[in-house]
Amino acid sequence: MTMTASSTAPAETTAGLRLRLARSAQEPDSAVTPDTEFRRWFAAQRQSRRYDVRRIPFAELAGWHFQDGTGNLVHRSGRFFSIEGLHVRTAWNGRETSWTQPIINQPEIGILGIVVKEFGGVLHCLMQAKMEPGNIDTVQLSPTVQATRSNYTGVHGGSAVRHLEYFVPPRRGSRVLFDSLQSEQGSWFLRKRNRNVVVEAFGDVPEHEDFVWLTLGQIYRLMHEDNVLNMDARTVLSQLPSFALGGVALHSKQEVLSRLTEVRARREFVQRSVPLADVRDWRRTGDEIGHRSGQHFSLIAADIRADSREVTRWSQPLLAPAEQGLAAFVVRRIGGVPHLLAHARTEAGVLNVAELAPTVQCQPGHALSLPAADRPRYLDVVLDAPRDRILFGSVQSEEGGRFHRADTRYQLIEVGDEFPVEVPEEFVWVTEEQLGDLLRHGNYVNIEARTLLTALRASGAAGRLR
Amino acid sequence: MTMTASSTAPAETTAGLRLRLARSAQEPDSAVTPDTEFRRWFAAQRQSRRYDVRRIPFAELAGWHFQDGTGNLVHRSGRFFSIEGLHVRTAWNGRETSWTQPIINQPEIGILGIVVKEFGGVLHCLMQAKMEPGNIDTVQLSPTVQATRSNYTGVHGGSAVRHLEYFVPPRRGSRVLFDSLQSEQGSWFLRKRNRNVVVEAFGDVPEHEDFVWLTLGQIYRLMHEDNVLNMDARTVLSQLPSFALGGVALHSKQEVLSRLTEVRARREFVQRSVPLADVRDWRRTGDEIGHRSGQHFSLIAADIRADSREVTRWSQPLLAPAEQGLAAFVVRRIGGVPHLLAHARTEAGVLNVAELAPTVQCQPGHALSLPAADRPRYLDVVLDAPRDRILFGSVQSEEGGRFHRADTRYQLIEVGDEFPVEVPEEFVWVTEEQLGDLLRHGNYVNIEARTLLTALRASGAAGRLR
Repeated sequence: MTMTASSTAPAETTAGLRLRLARSAQEPDSAVTPDTEFRRWFAAQRQSRRYDVRRIPFAELAGWHFQDGTGNLVHRSGRFFSIEGLHVRTAWNGRETSWTQPIINQPEIGILGIVVKEFGGVLHCLMQAKMEPGNIDTVQLSPTVQATRSNYTGVHGGSAVRHLEYFVPPRRGSRVLFDSLQSEQGSWFLRKRNRNVVVEAFGDVPEHEDFVWLTLGQIYRLMHEDNVLNMDARTVLSQLPSFALGGVALHSKQEVLSRLTEVRARREFVQRSVPLADVRDWRRTGDEIGHRSGQHFSLIAADIRADSREVTRWSQPLLAPAEQGLAAFVVRRIGGVPHLLAHARTEAGVLNVAELAPTVQCQPGHALSLPAADRPRYLDVVLDAPRDRILFGSVQSEEGGRFHRADTRYQLIEVGDEFPVEVPEEFVWVTEEQLGDLLRHGNYVNIEARTLLTALRASGAAGRLR
Repeated sequence: MTMTASSTAPAETTAGLRLRLARSAQEPDSAVTPDTEFRRWFAAQRQSRRYDVRRIPFAELAGWHFQDGTGNLVHRSGRFFSIEGLHVRTAWNGRETSWTQPIINQPEIGILGIVVKEFGGVLHCLMQAKMEPGNIDTVQLSPTVQATRSNYTGVHGGSAVRHLEYFVPPRRGSRVLFDSLQSEQGSWFLRKRNRNVVVEAFGDVPEHEDFVWLTLGQIYRLMHEDNVLNMDARTVLSQLPSFALGGVALHSKQEVLSRLTEVRARREFVQRSVPLADVRDWRRTGDEIGHRSGQHFSLIAADIRADSREVTRWSQPLLAPAEQGLAAFVVRRIGGVPHLLAHARTEAGVLNVAELAPTVQCQPGHALSLPAADRPRYLDVVLDAPRDRILFGSVQSEEGGRFHRADTRYQLIEVGDEFPVEVPEEFVWVTEEQLGDLLRHGNYVNIEARTLLTALRASGAAGRLR
């Protein structure tokens, strides 16, 4: 098989594409899918498509078992994913910590892809109403395609993935706008990445009752509602740059890269896979693996029945967080230009030592249970923020195919000149444009920060800073 | 500890820096270190500084032992590196292969850094004459600083690393020009990266008998000699862009990224650490671990005595390749612009599925022993190239601190219009400038390709294409 350089699309400058995206972002409604129609359709989807999710003992999982010797929770096909143990040792400025924990190992890269297309001169995104067993409200808006490699190669015995042809060679009738491998939750997944890809389609795209065309303006409005846009939609949307705001950044691009490189090089970080049976401080009962403190997360088993047109009944393990998460960027003007305070954060399963994360990212109940000196830096700034300094706030769900009712409060917190520009070396001020540029490459910006980048654009928050 | 945004250097455009680098590349001699003086100094270094390297049985290694249970070869400190086993399963377009092998695990990131400074308006690089036990000719030219974290934190009990202060905070009197984490040999190292960094110094830099200031022109001439510039020097030098040649690339930057992303996403690739004792087809004797075919590489033990001013005697394991390697880029003009044919290559220990590698990279004796269908693509083009189509050719050593007399024949092979532009999907045509841009980020361009990028600039080869 060969690939050629030719594209069916005319060459376009980055600025031209940004202008078209900006225009779509300014369209609060669509001629193709008027908002009233979307609302009716989405409500009907949520009403008619339900999963019956029932917790079961691990022993009742079909196809899954605890492996002899290691105690790892695996599928008999050797595919999908497994629950294993991980030992982590890390040190920073002389302070060393180590721990073991369960982690999801899914060493395959799936596709999260959005098809965009112009209607009446306005770019629209093809969004899917997708059910996931762990979802709050079951149905959320997802990218056009959301498929693990097992999905689209048919390992799970389901039907073909709709619209996949726009994302795999020979990829006729479309051209790639953005395409990179991006990380997922580093505390819960071992080095997991998915392909985040946006393609523009030129010919007719087949219609289907579970899909709608929405403008960026419509989608951005939905970001302000809780639990509508699923995690995969939010991360793919973060690939779309906003129209450049301009302004001089505090740090050059090279300085930002060097700051992150510095942390990655100097932070000691050693991951070692261990048998799940050897994970300390975690207890396995007949229907749960949990930390003895009750904190962090637990692993449970679920039996799932659906009216879905795919596989209609199955069982699987799910990861259930102990509490709602918190992810917040502190935002302030520096030299008149809005900057986000990013944290070079290391999580157990991270591929590349550290990624740029929100200023604060934690489980707040757990964080507040720690001695003051061990709490996340700037937690108080976020928790104590006056209401009128919260530029954006909503609760969003994490991946409902692996996590059980996992949600996070996402916030953008405005701070003024009283907040020092000088910050500890594991933090760095970046502009929205710089974060967007880093997203052309993988493993620079973590998934929580990517949701907040989408939120920043959705809220026009940068423009509203005092 | 905090870091500030300020830099002692005036802001400089990328074009300005490139011009200064181009000027240095055009200086074949230096007023600071005239070539005759350099030759005298280098010959004296090679004559006076020798290691006595003697192979010993594993049982005589001081501080190293085969760990109970796993059989891993480890140091009693738990530091430095270890020799472990790795199981790899990979599949591409339906063809699956799997194997186990020994691999070096050194989960820490060292610093490979060059200090540059202007003398008389010409940038010079501060190069070090460095001894390594595995080196051909013992002393080779290395970056200003070449230090594992164990080195510079003093784990091996040696003396302080000279000039380290230019590379670690608070990093006074210098500014960072380039800084990224880059991979090393994926077939021999498990996910190994080092920090490749270039800083410009402004004040006086202390002199020392083992260091010299050379222009890029002088260094580039040395690239044509065998075994003078060590691997670490070549990779750090690859970070320095040449003056942009201009011209339109066959593929846009986004297309190149997407091609690599496509390979990374679709290629199945699962690494699993296993005990060295469980590695199949490899035999351990009292003084060697080797493949039963005699191919690939073996692991040996060495006792090393030196006149060095650092630790003067120690023993360690070394990896000894079975034969000289071959790494070659095919180069052709497309639309008048020189392009390199890069291969999205997967090696056992790679961090991120695949990196851009030379067109052909193999052990040629092993490759020719394979059935024709299993040989590396384009091997014949390289091996059969007429002498006048070899734009660059020299033999260079790989890292002498881990490898025993490992060397590689590096070549740039010119091809004409008879060579098809259409190539299999795991290959992609890239310009020198595109490869240089990718080097701002880690794990895009493998170490053999980086040596060849330095060679391309050193030879002015692109300009000599017919």
